[in-house]
Amino acid sequence: MAVYTEVSDEELEAFVAGYDIGRVLSCKGIAEGVENSNFALHTERGSYILTLYEKRVRESDLPFFLGLMRHLSANGLVCPLPILDRRGEALGRLAGRPAALVSFLEGLSVRRPNARHCGALGEALGRLHAAGRDFPMTRENALSVTGWRPLFEAAQAQADRVSPGLRERAAQALDALERHWPAGLPTGVIHADLFTDNVFFIGEAVSGLIDFYFACTDALAYDLSICLNAWCFEPDGSFNVTKGRAMIAGYERVRRLEPDEVEALPLLCRGSALRFMLTRLVDWLNVPPGALVKPKDPLEYDRKLSFHGKATSAFEYGLQR
Amino acid sequence: MAVYTEVSDEELEAFVAGYDIGRVLSCKGIAEGVENSNFALHTERGSYILTLYEKRVRESDLPFFLGLMRHLSANGLVCPLPILDRRGEALGRLAGRPAALVSFLEGLSVRRPNARHCGALGEALGRLHAAGRDFPMTRENALSVTGWRPLFEAAQAQADRVSPGLRERAAQALDALERHWPAGLPTGVIHADLFTDNVFFIGEAVSGLIDFYFACTDALAYDLSICLNAWCFEPDGSFNVTKGRAMIAGYERVRRLEPDEVEALPLLCRGSALRFMLTRLVDWLNVPPGALVKPKDPLEYDRKLSFHGKATSAFEYGLQR
Repeated sequence: MAVYTEVSDEELEAFVAGYDIGRVLSCKGIAEGVENSNFALHTERGSYILTLYEKRVRESDLPFFLGLMRHLSANGLVCPLPILDRRGEALGRLAGRPAALVSFLEGLSVRRPNARHCGALGEALGRLHAAGRDFPMTRENALSVTGWRPLFEAAQAQADRVSPGLRERAAQALDALERHWPAGLPTGVIHADLFTDNVFFIGEAVSGLIDFYFACTDALAYDLSICLNAWCFEPDGSFNVTKGRAMIAGYERVRRLEPDEVEALPLLCRGSALRFMLTRLVDWLNVPPGALVKPKDPLEYDRKLSFHGKATSAFEYGLQR
Repeated sequence: MAVYTEVSDEELEAFVAGYDIGRVLSCKGIAEGVENSNFALHTERGSYILTLYEKRVRESDLPFFLGLMRHLSANGLVCPLPILDRRGEALGRLAGRPAALVSFLEGLSVRRPNARHCGALGEALGRLHAAGRDFPMTRENALSVTGWRPLFEAAQAQADRVSPGLRERAAQALDALERHWPAGLPTGVIHADLFTDNVFFIGEAVSGLIDFYFACTDALAYDLSICLNAWCFEPDGSFNVTKGRAMIAGYERVRRLEPDEVEALPLLCRGSALRFMLTRLVDWLNVPPGALVKPKDPLEYDRKLSFHGKATSAFEYGLQR
């Protein structure tokens, strides 16, 4: 649940007057995104999302994120389209914060995706990678393999308080990943956070992808591994290979995995599971007393790590060749 | 900021299928109302607010609130219109809670109303009272004079911790109000909580009134006194008689105050100021540690009480005859 920056009616009307979108009709703070303040805005011209960037987003990254969403939209991907103001800028300021207006997307997040949702998501991910192919800007993935040891160091002393043996399991995975992390895979723009809450569906068709604030330049197949982790495990911790098969096949309808990506898939999955286990663990150990936000469970990803540690080939994830 | 009940996509789609409003297109939790969970819902048919009633609202009161909004809408007042489901019911259940769908109203709350806003609000209040005239249901005002002593008793021991002398000032006001509270004034449906966040404007015209969950049957002029308190004081604590004049004149364009209401106005204003001072004081003294919600300042209403204690006639509030 987001904490909102308050925006007065006067500030809002002055901000919107900088765009060619008519007068403000209504504006409501919405519970979407944990990093920023978001508002559903209606004007005489249509519906928009107004985002105020709070301090967890680096202001210097905003031109990358906003430029990327414009690029992807221009290349046919349905994602929020940043609206340009009368000066031609996508980034403005409101209530003392960097702010942007993007188009409103219809759709619902699914809480329990089925195999058809996974297939549609795989295809949407492929389209995202294709649409991002010639995006000229780059942004390093701060949460890839070189970023994991600092997270591990920050959390390891208390890891066994969360689950006995967690420190050792994380250490072993980290050692193996640092030694064997694949280099030279096809890279490009990745979303890097395509969990179910960032994908909208109408029925079983993807109606849009949102929240590009972890997007960066990295191995394309790493993005697929994040989605396999986020979408294809069951609540009991087992990997659902039917969902994995649907997702990989959906992806390959748009972009066929290359042999080195196929070979690297188990390691990539293990890496992305470690990445989310570690960031969740750090958040878990740093919940302020009395906080209303319940942090996400790091042990969900500890269980996924154990699956990936034993997997030996992409076929175990549902690749069919 | 509201704490939201989570609603899954499956539950939501099943709930909406009970209405003749087409398929769900999107649904976002919004930061509106502190008592309930609210969602901005788009369907193929239009925009709605979906409300899940949390435990602070008594379920047995819901037929009064929903019936009232339907009655007021039918009589031309712009307020949320509860949508009937296929069985003809306005009240349903979703995620284990009583739930209702109402029409979406455009408009913005003003943070700093000017005299024209106050005039428009006064007129809207008059229209609300006129539209409610023949509403057949009644609901007692639990927060009128007989409800204040229990609040005072709950807070008095700690009142001076909040401001020296506050206990004595509240006790004196309460004694005077209990002795002299007017009886026999014209009564009807009152909103009883028409603060600026419950009034939408487009430009300087009222576009709708919302949040009828304190509505009850009480003296109509008491409702006006609540608005005078909420809208016509300046941040420095002074009463702005230009705003009061605009509000009362606006109200009287629709419904002229009767002589006994005119006479009672200072006492009614003092009473409503005490009511909000006491409920705020109780909330202030009962903030759970670590809460993110900052309670509203009871001392704002302590200062207003002191103005009303000295006022001797409705002319000091801007009545012009």
